[in-house]
Amino acid sequence: MLYIVGLGLGDERDITLRGLDAVRSCHKVYVEAYTSLLSFGLASDGLSKLEKLYGKEIEVADREMVEERADVMLQEALESDVAFLVVGDPFGATTHTDLVVRAKKLGLEVKVIHNASVMNAIGVCGLQLYRYGETVSIPFFTETWRPDSFYEKIQNNRQLGLHTLCLLDIRVKEPSFESLCRGKKVYEPPKFMTINTAINQLLEVQEMHGESVYNADSLCVGIARLGSQDQMLVAGSMKKLLDVDFGAPLHCLIIVGELHPVEEEMMQFYLIK
Amino acid sequence: MLYIVGLGLGDERDITLRGLDAVRSCHKVYVEAYTSLLSFGLASDGLSKLEKLYGKEIEVADREMVEERADVMLQEALESDVAFLVVGDPFGATTHTDLVVRAKKLGLEVKVIHNASVMNAIGVCGLQLYRYGETVSIPFFTETWRPDSFYEKIQNNRQLGLHTLCLLDIRVKEPSFESLCRGKKVYEPPKFMTINTAINQLLEVQEMHGESVYNADSLCVGIARLGSQDQMLVAGSMKKLLDVDFGAPLHCLIIVGELHPVEEEMMQFYLIK
Repeated sequence: MLYIVGLGLGDERDITLRGLDAVRSCHKVYVEAYTSLLSFGLASDGLSKLEKLYGKEIEVADREMVEERADVMLQEALESDVAFLVVGDPFGATTHTDLVVRAKKLGLEVKVIHNASVMNAIGVCGLQLYRYGETVSIPFFTETWRPDSFYEKIQNNRQLGLHTLCLLDIRVKEPSFESLCRGKKVYEPPKFMTINTAINQLLEVQEMHGESVYNADSLCVGIARLGSQDQMLVAGSMKKLLDVDFGAPLHCLIIVGELHPVEEEMMQFYLIK
Repeated sequence: MLYIVGLGLGDERDITLRGLDAVRSCHKVYVEAYTSLLSFGLASDGLSKLEKLYGKEIEVADREMVEERADVMLQEALESDVAFLVVGDPFGATTHTDLVVRAKKLGLEVKVIHNASVMNAIGVCGLQLYRYGETVSIPFFTETWRPDSFYEKIQNNRQLGLHTLCLLDIRVKEPSFESLCRGKKVYEPPKFMTINTAINQLLEVQEMHGESVYNADSLCVGIARLGSQDQMLVAGSMKKLLDVDFGAPLHCLIIVGELHPVEEEMMQFYLIK
């Protein structure tokens, strides 16, 4: 049996009782490092807290392992119970559908244990979840690579009066370009897009298109460390949010659509003056 | 302090450790009956299981109470810690934004403890959460009231190739029409829309509009009891799903947009033959 267990968004105490039961019953426990160690302390500390709570050793499955060596984990799960831990919900912003497909092809039973993810916890800002359009991802621009496919999606959402959740780029364990040239992988330090960088890129794309899908005066909500004890929520125009220091990762950004009265009222509590 | 605690989707063991800590530390615990008792056994059984786990008495706050007597609860929360339990996530499909607004106006501190909701747990069917458009609600049609504002929203989503989550109507503690005439409230038995009824209503509206937004051959996913141990997932055309008995509530329905390869592969596992 393979358990895919959502850990939620805050720290080790956001696991559910059902999730904890599953982890404790498993012979082997993996945690997906790609996103998880970010939120849970960014370092070995987060892992040891998890190990202490579960009473189990945890093996860190980084992105390469999940993509390249998933077969090993799946083989183990054919013989005994294995838990694969994922920050947020197993099928939240980062998807593990491919892992499930591979497991099912092997005839392996898969049990999913849900938890909160960015996709529903953003409800905390007061914008109604059923009034969001398509979610977009904002990738880090480089000198030569400035993809802007998010622009048309934001345009579609705004034409319908809908809110847009922007997921901001995370770069973890990317091999550096020079190291690839030298044939030996050396990794870049992890990199998380801030709300400020996202807004700068959004405004650059807006200017390039010369339309009026949004502009520096458009109302947004910036959320840092969603679901954590030190979560930070600020609403304001893009221009104003550019001056806000949201602190440590992870950040996300919502471009606000048409507001209903309760949404408007809620927003007053964290609107920047 | 007012804690708003998400209970998740399955049963009493889907609460998080953080949520359990909060509930156990509170002087008074309310559970929102409007949607909660549905999923947790539909009866007094669900409540006693919760009380046993928490070691606390729980007061059932039905919809009338939440709407009409929330002030009492908020006043209590000004004096000591109160927990308000909500099935799913506090800001999932049913919103409690209004309660938060009222609490904040009283100067009350509010802590939200997130959990899984329908809005993210539907990821389990393999359709990517970021490829959904606006969520729609399908209300029970009556002889004289057949609102179809969902139709245009589905149309918008399909034009963009996006999936549509349809939330199906729940009627709990509705005063019967006759009882209102007699001046004394007597309640109708609870009523939950099945996937079959939803599809019949969708097809009726489609026929009325005479366009081709969707039809009996359109691919859908029906999900019953999402997040529970006996969750049921079936994909197929509207026509085929009409013949499926999905069993006990709650049901929801997804109208599938354009499929990516992994989505397509995943769907094969529960596609009706």
